[in-house]
Amino acid sequence: MEIKVVKKVLGVNEAIAEEIRKQLKEKKIFMFNIMSSPGSGKTLLLEKSIAALKNDVRIGIIVGDICTTRDSERLSKTGVPVVQINTEPFGGDCHLAANLIQSALNELDLDNLDIVIVENVGNLVCPAEFEIGEDKKVVVLSLPEGEDKPLKYPLMFRVAHCAIINKIDLEPHLELDRSKFRENIKKINPQIHLFELSAKTGEGFKDWLEWIWREAKTKIS
Amino acid sequence: MEIKVVKKVLGVNEAIAEEIRKQLKEKKIFMFNIMSSPGSGKTLLLEKSIAALKNDVRIGIIVGDICTTRDSERLSKTGVPVVQINTEPFGGDCHLAANLIQSALNELDLDNLDIVIVENVGNLVCPAEFEIGEDKKVVVLSLPEGEDKPLKYPLMFRVAHCAIINKIDLEPHLELDRSKFRENIKKINPQIHLFELSAKTGEGFKDWLEWIWREAKTKIS
Repeated sequence: MEIKVVKKVLGVNEAIAEEIRKQLKEKKIFMFNIMSSPGSGKTLLLEKSIAALKNDVRIGIIVGDICTTRDSERLSKTGVPVVQINTEPFGGDCHLAANLIQSALNELDLDNLDIVIVENVGNLVCPAEFEIGEDKKVVVLSLPEGEDKPLKYPLMFRVAHCAIINKIDLEPHLELDRSKFRENIKKINPQIHLFELSAKTGEGFKDWLEWIWREAKTKIS
Repeated sequence: MEIKVVKKVLGVNEAIAEEIRKQLKEKKIFMFNIMSSPGSGKTLLLEKSIAALKNDVRIGIIVGDICTTRDSERLSKTGVPVVQINTEPFGGDCHLAANLIQSALNELDLDNLDIVIVENVGNLVCPAEFEIGEDKKVVVLSLPEGEDKPLKYPLMFRVAHCAIINKIDLEPHLELDRSKFRENIKKINPQIHLFELSAKTGEGFKDWLEWIWREAKTKIS
């Protein structure tokens, strides 16, 4: 019985995600959904990405958190419009569902945007189960989290189009083999686009920015 | 309607948790539930803790993962009995519920155990919502995850009796202020027992082991 209810909720979610997809197609907006565990460095990654792109493309941000507006405060300093979703009033939800994204999109001036970036709630499990009408899903895994995470949380890596291995600047201080991260991600999803970078130092950032450009162009033009 | 169903499920869970509590009281077993994000170092922490305690006290382990038996394979090398719960057949659940713990306890020889340790699924959100009949809840936060996590995921820190700040050996390589971790944890939960340690180097381990001893003694004797 529990499973039936979950299916029903997911069915409603999927229908709203489809509405969002249509709306974004009409408005020629590219939207990606960035997901990870808490503390993988999503916000810094986005701060740096927005700084690099914002002069050439019009970006809007939707930030999901259970509570606090810390990430949206950080991101609003980049000068692009930011909408915060706090899931606490909705039972402290551990993911963003399509209906929340729909409300957040209503707060953005979509006629004057090319890219919408959704920073999901920090959680390597549940957000993978919810379509939010995005064009692409991006998962961030940082080196200190360990190379076994793609094997232990496979759904996230299976549904993602792009994976970022972040915090590579910490490699000299950790006992690990970075090639194992690559191997395990590719084992779960051989087609995934894989980037290894440090949002802190900027190493490896160029390829990631090019991916955004490439994907956005197919939608915007 | 969705909320009604969730309440019902939680009600059933709570009832089973209560049964577990009674059973463990009868058997004079101390059970703690250790929770964190993926990659905070729970498994290494437990390997070292078990190695330090197992000659003086009889320990059993229940390991929750969505899939893979990697953690239980690592922990079984310590020589103590380990039961693995994979939640994938149950929809890839992002937490351990009381009914799964009840089944796992049936697999352990409870007449010959003093402590049961539950390593929960790596997730800083959902496991906090589910009572599993444990005596104490422990949350692990590692330095690379960042000092804002208690503020962003407050429920976990609110329900935990004990918090461990792990990977303090990485402090020289991270731009952070460790006192902020302490402050933010205490802001959410002033009564929490707080330990700062490195499971890798063993620094700070003694106080954590003493906490286990102290808590276990109230139940065992």
